[in-house]
Amino acid sequence: MSNTLLLNKYSYSTFKPAEPLTIHDINQQTVEAKYAVRGKIPIIAEGLQELIKMSPTNHGLPFNKIINANIGNPQQLDQKPLTWYRQVLSILQYPELLNEPNNFPNDVKERARNILKNVGSIGAYSHSQGAPYFRSSVAEFITKRDGFPSNAQDIFLTSGASTAVSYLLQLLSQDENSGFLIPIPQYPLYTASIALNDSKPVGYYLDESNKWSTNPNEIRQLLKTKAKEGINIKALVVINPGNPTGGVLTRKDMVELISICAEYGIVLIADEVYQENVFDGAFLSFKKVLSEMKKESPELYKDVQLASLHSTSKGVTGECGQRGGYMELVGFKPDVREIIFKLASINLCSVVSGQAMVELMINPPKKGDESYDTYISETNSIHDDLKERAEHLYNAFLEMEDVFVDKPQGAMYIFPKLDFKPEIYHKLFSRAKNSGLQIDDVYCIELLEHTGICCVPGNGFGQRPGTYHLRTTFLPPGKEWIVRWKEFHHSFVNKYKDMTLSL
Amino acid sequence: MSNTLLLNKYSYSTFKPAEPLTIHDINQQTVEAKYAVRGKIPIIAEGLQELIKMSPTNHGLPFNKIINANIGNPQQLDQKPLTWYRQVLSILQYPELLNEPNNFPNDVKERARNILKNVGSIGAYSHSQGAPYFRSSVAEFITKRDGFPSNAQDIFLTSGASTAVSYLLQLLSQDENSGFLIPIPQYPLYTASIALNDSKPVGYYLDESNKWSTNPNEIRQLLKTKAKEGINIKALVVINPGNPTGGVLTRKDMVELISICAEYGIVLIADEVYQENVFDGAFLSFKKVLSEMKKESPELYKDVQLASLHSTSKGVTGECGQRGGYMELVGFKPDVREIIFKLASINLCSVVSGQAMVELMINPPKKGDESYDTYISETNSIHDDLKERAEHLYNAFLEMEDVFVDKPQGAMYIFPKLDFKPEIYHKLFSRAKNSGLQIDDVYCIELLEHTGICCVPGNGFGQRPGTYHLRTTFLPPGKEWIVRWKEFHHSFVNKYKDMTLSL
Repeated sequence: MSNTLLLNKYSYSTFKPAEPLTIHDINQQTVEAKYAVRGKIPIIAEGLQELIKMSPTNHGLPFNKIINANIGNPQQLDQKPLTWYRQVLSILQYPELLNEPNNFPNDVKERARNILKNVGSIGAYSHSQGAPYFRSSVAEFITKRDGFPSNAQDIFLTSGASTAVSYLLQLLSQDENSGFLIPIPQYPLYTASIALNDSKPVGYYLDESNKWSTNPNEIRQLLKTKAKEGINIKALVVINPGNPTGGVLTRKDMVELISICAEYGIVLIADEVYQENVFDGAFLSFKKVLSEMKKESPELYKDVQLASLHSTSKGVTGECGQRGGYMELVGFKPDVREIIFKLASINLCSVVSGQAMVELMINPPKKGDESYDTYISETNSIHDDLKERAEHLYNAFLEMEDVFVDKPQGAMYIFPKLDFKPEIYHKLFSRAKNSGLQIDDVYCIELLEHTGICCVPGNGFGQRPGTYHLRTTFLPPGKEWIVRWKEFHHSFVNKYKDMTLSL
Repeated sequence: MSNTLLLNKYSYSTFKPAEPLTIHDINQQTVEAKYAVRGKIPIIAEGLQELIKMSPTNHGLPFNKIINANIGNPQQLDQKPLTWYRQVLSILQYPELLNEPNNFPNDVKERARNILKNVGSIGAYSHSQGAPYFRSSVAEFITKRDGFPSNAQDIFLTSGASTAVSYLLQLLSQDENSGFLIPIPQYPLYTASIALNDSKPVGYYLDESNKWSTNPNEIRQLLKTKAKEGINIKALVVINPGNPTGGVLTRKDMVELISICAEYGIVLIADEVYQENVFDGAFLSFKKVLSEMKKESPELYKDVQLASLHSTSKGVTGECGQRGGYMELVGFKPDVREIIFKLASINLCSVVSGQAMVELMINPPKKGDESYDTYISETNSIHDDLKERAEHLYNAFLEMEDVFVDKPQGAMYIFPKLDFKPEIYHKLFSRAKNSGLQIDDVYCIELLEHTGICCVPGNGFGQRPGTYHLRTTFLPPGKEWIVRWKEFHHSFVNKYKDMTLSL
């Protein structure tokens, strides 16, 4: 193209160009927020992966592949999507398939037709809260699941659960003294969102010695102490089944937590995205327990504000990349709910194929439908497979020296404690401190460098001072990686046992 | 289920339940943010639509259908998705289609195979910045479009362009004195995001008398004045082609704007989502103009920070509900770019089918490919159709009394001025003031109530004090609605002409 530019001669001749913005010129909350799940260890792993890709035969590493156990991303590993989901979604993308010869079951075509009739093209923006047809379907699902009514106008369809968390934390962060009760350990989305909104995280400890249960008295005590410090607690975050712990709350704990929210007028944010991943017994929702309590004592519980989150990313569904999710709001004042609607409007709408994914998850084929048998056999196989992988990895940790581990009850993770004997601990502590790291960082880095296994240090989730953990998914297929981990652990322990501490 | 709840007897017997949160207990920025595109007029329209649905035969309204001209949502109206996009996306959802008999062209299958091979399942989380394969493809597209290199590591795939705006404004809002230069009128996503981040909008006027061009001297003046007031301008937002104005910037204006950013070290946010919607001549990107300027005077322009946004929602693509988009960053310091990456990581990733949609938009079938002819005929037909609709609506406004309108050069909107004669103006002003409204609100409400046509008052976008506009898309099909609009306008003007002002 032309080199004769219409440069503005005035400015051209007189101005001195300015420097670009530095990290000190921007929003410091964005600088300070931390998100370990995609943080330093996964970034090193990515570099190693790149190295292997560029030099497949002479990369010099003792492994040929990164094992991504840092993130619950089933289809990145070997989990196959359910046929039912994908057949319906393919028709929604290309409705002509309804008129062409193919092998799609009748119930698949019928569901696709119904969605197209009621929602229209998935290429159009939907209502900002989600297409009414899908919201009604979610409300029916919740009604059936809990035995208590749910209303489509209380349902917000979101891009995974992350967007719901982002709306809620933005809404509730009134000023820098707004506080959020979060479990320690927690999923770091919460601390990151709290940091971005310049409000205060108030951690309550989960009890590792008692299956990661909550201690309501500690939470009540925190509410009192923090009030004296001028911190105005806005919400209690509960992750159930637990991430990263894999723990599942008892009904008694849930009742206690709801009572606290009733007494203090704080919002209960129930992150229930792992509701499909409960290994023993059935999932019990906060909505159900709250509804029972309301029925028994309406005067006490009628005003409890509950936001319950679900997602298509986890469970046997595992459709992370489709970004489907929903939030049910209960007990919010209508004008406050309107503000959440406005936040959703500013983003226009969540992806409509993801909204459809939610519908397919919560309204699967029924007995007698053509897809039913395949659906059941595929979901059972995924469920059994996850359970088996969880047990296998759990057993491996049981055998490792200086590791304390709880049997996973749900979710997709194990969060073992690295409980090194003093002789090892002191040397590791000193080694870590010299590098500006913590003991769990050192363990995870060495694990990655020796085996290619990428997991996340416990400090990314929060842990009691002086304790060290790591979070690993049990999703990677096969047993070979677990054998390598055991071997690594053995050498790691011995290396530090034998090491002479040079101070 | 059991009615014997494990209610905590201690709390049960002693606590007094608290009230739920009111609108005064939450983040006031979320209360104050405004978003007119889905604001009061569209909400009234939704109510009317509901009424028609509930009582199709006796709703008592003078129309049977809402015409949604308030939002650029082509597939909500009658625009068909391009076959090419949807065939590939259907295979990505259900790869088994590659092994089944069907009528898909070979290039469709080949593209799908390539994506599946390089990206894997679209049900897995991708890299937070977007799958590397898609980012490389976007970089190639930009390189070809502009004749200057683009790099995959500078590309962020986002959920439409809205998410990119949200990252940038969050990043750049250092404190309450951070300011953003935004055009008046503007797309209200910008004022909403600025309000949410508690920073300051600094409006610069577009010149309606000169095809909505920018006045660089006014912008320079604003930078000086605002600096004295302690406002630290962080970015200059430019929407080109313009929303809501439909204007297209000249190269000379673009050079001026880039020079301003170079001199003041502020980020140029170039919202170029309507780049496919230019009616005459070719689209000229800020990246291209900046690259030419850098080539000519590297010492002046090497540090200019540009964020250019694109989306799959607009243009002939029109796939709003698929939530595809990208942002290219140029000239940002690497550690600042890392913070944007962290913000993207906290959201995990944008929907992967939307990322694929971007790839299909920027890398369409080539001459000789089996899909090429269909693709060309479909895109030409949409393009011609949009141009025809734009002209038809433009001509209608030309004929309306007291309306001043510019010929649309691009985008999907017309932004006519309601330029009422004093005799009408005064009565309208008084009528509006009595209801706490503005003149353009009154016009849009009456238009909606009489015709079912939903558009957005100019005050939702910003306009010079004392002027009144409205924004309408020209997307609705047919001419009947335009005839009704003309009739309505005629009666509206006459009604206020004839009205006796009661003071």
